[in-house]
Amino acid sequence: MSTDDTTTETDASTSNCGAASTTDSSSESTCGASSSTDSSSSSCGASESTEEKVGSTADDFDADPGKLTAVGLGPGQPEGMTERAKAALADAEHIVGYTTYIDLIPDDITDDAEDIYDTPMCGEVSRTEEAIDRALAGNDVAIVGSGDPNVYALAGLALEIVESKGATASALDFEVVPGVPAAQSCGARLGAPLVNDSVSVSLSDHLTPMPEIESRLHAVAGEGFTISIYNPWSRKRRENFQKACEILLAHRDADTPVGIVHGAGREDEEIELTTLGELESYGETDLVDMTTTVVVGNEDTYVFDDRMVTPRGYETKYDY
Amino acid sequence: MSTDDTTTETDASTSNCGAASTTDSSSESTCGASSSTDSSSSSCGASESTEEKVGSTADDFDADPGKLTAVGLGPGQPEGMTERAKAALADAEHIVGYTTYIDLIPDDITDDAEDIYDTPMCGEVSRTEEAIDRALAGNDVAIVGSGDPNVYALAGLALEIVESKGATASALDFEVVPGVPAAQSCGARLGAPLVNDSVSVSLSDHLTPMPEIESRLHAVAGEGFTISIYNPWSRKRRENFQKACEILLAHRDADTPVGIVHGAGREDEEIELTTLGELESYGETDLVDMTTTVVVGNEDTYVFDDRMVTPRGYETKYDY
Repeated sequence: MSTDDTTTETDASTSNCGAASTTDSSSESTCGASSSTDSSSSSCGASESTEEKVGSTADDFDADPGKLTAVGLGPGQPEGMTERAKAALADAEHIVGYTTYIDLIPDDITDDAEDIYDTPMCGEVSRTEEAIDRALAGNDVAIVGSGDPNVYALAGLALEIVESKGATASALDFEVVPGVPAAQSCGARLGAPLVNDSVSVSLSDHLTPMPEIESRLHAVAGEGFTISIYNPWSRKRRENFQKACEILLAHRDADTPVGIVHGAGREDEEIELTTLGELESYGETDLVDMTTTVVVGNEDTYVFDDRMVTPRGYETKYDY
Repeated sequence: MSTDDTTTETDASTSNCGAASTTDSSSESTCGASSSTDSSSSSCGASESTEEKVGSTADDFDADPGKLTAVGLGPGQPEGMTERAKAALADAEHIVGYTTYIDLIPDDITDDAEDIYDTPMCGEVSRTEEAIDRALAGNDVAIVGSGDPNVYALAGLALEIVESKGATASALDFEVVPGVPAAQSCGARLGAPLVNDSVSVSLSDHLTPMPEIESRLHAVAGEGFTISIYNPWSRKRRENFQKACEILLAHRDADTPVGIVHGAGREDEEIELTTLGELESYGETDLVDMTTTVVVGNEDTYVFDDRMVTPRGYETKYDY
């Protein structure tokens, strides 16, 4: 498959329900991750290439390494950050991230930082490498993303690149500061859809083949899991959303409640309660794009006063 | 089955990886949710009974209702709270919660509240009803728990009880303030185990029958999901943990990395990296109890420098 929607998708996947990321999904295809094959198509400040090797290794740096921290900003508004995230950013000498995420950080923190390294929507591999090089050079570095660093985000990539450079996580005192993930931010906006066993599935087939995604959807839709769908739709793979709806409908009733949260925490935030039978019809609307999270109820989920509720089963044990 | 480990389990389930909840799992059985059958066994301040009906309804209150907010405190230390959670608590006139969670809230907030209603480890149904009655009586009320109100927690129960009282969520301006869930807090401590599609499964069979839990485990273990196991072990159901290990081993290699995080954020926090083949042997140790979250890697997960890493697949597209 083409890789030219690569980093848009993966950046956006950490920003559902909260962070302002791709404001225009149609701009995805201008983001050339495989810039070696068509460098003129890249609108990204940080170019990268599938041919490009990580340049420097731990041996290239003489200084004692600084500290590397992956910080989750949460849902996208400064008030959604934890105190610990703010403290980690305040302690960092360099803050590295996608421009839109950097903009989420309160000014008093960014003003105090020695340096901010931000790049537009592409380039997460080169940006992460830049963060690691700066830490290896002796700086305390925070690399930031919205949501949580463990949810379709950069904590893993950071560790992989640290390893590839011959450095170690402990030498960099590598730490992950968790944040509120999109599923929880969107669940909160919808009411209480996720109180039981739950899964997160991304429909982006850039890094996971679609047959695997389909198999996962079949497996969980046949059980009682509520399902949070990340990266539900992009122009490059509109059929994935359609396929996902078909799979879910093969296992669950058409009247299963579904919550759609678009651009949560952004000015264009929009919330829609619908049903599984209607979900596919939203695929071609502005409501469902890479900034949207779709929350699919289980067989017990119902809608009460515009809120999704998934009972935990208390009602089987208690009268109220 | 017996219900007398009821509320201990469900309270504890919101507190994994962060909040100090049951400090002694052996005390669980002194917590009599079914106090009607053996009231003398209850050590809880708030008694409740499976026979007990919700007493008051919306019609019993003359005042204009106040606001009801379910607030997630996150991992258990004040610095793990979001600004928004702090603001919601500061705005609340009454704060309601399990005593251990109330103790997590900074003193300046609790000192400013008009009233704090806290009960020991049992009584989440009666406590939630108390919170709702206070809101219906005209007070602005925050009901708190660790982690996120949507993750094995009280947001759903609150909505169910609101409905049972003939009130509405909108009349109470019901709002959920999300927090960092245990899976993410524990994932952060372990490195980057959860960066791909992931599920949360609770092994507590108090509110979900064990055959359903087993079926869910089979379904997800056969796919590429990483798995966060909540409520892995209690004295009342030690065989559930054993069964879960057997199911996971039926689908995944014995050398699959597993992270165990006990009492995260507490003084007795302990982290252990092990393998799926060794996991069952921890079931009878102090490491695995109701305050523990177990994170099971997928087939790609590996351990690097004492961190769990689940690659997202960047390595298939980029050289680094």
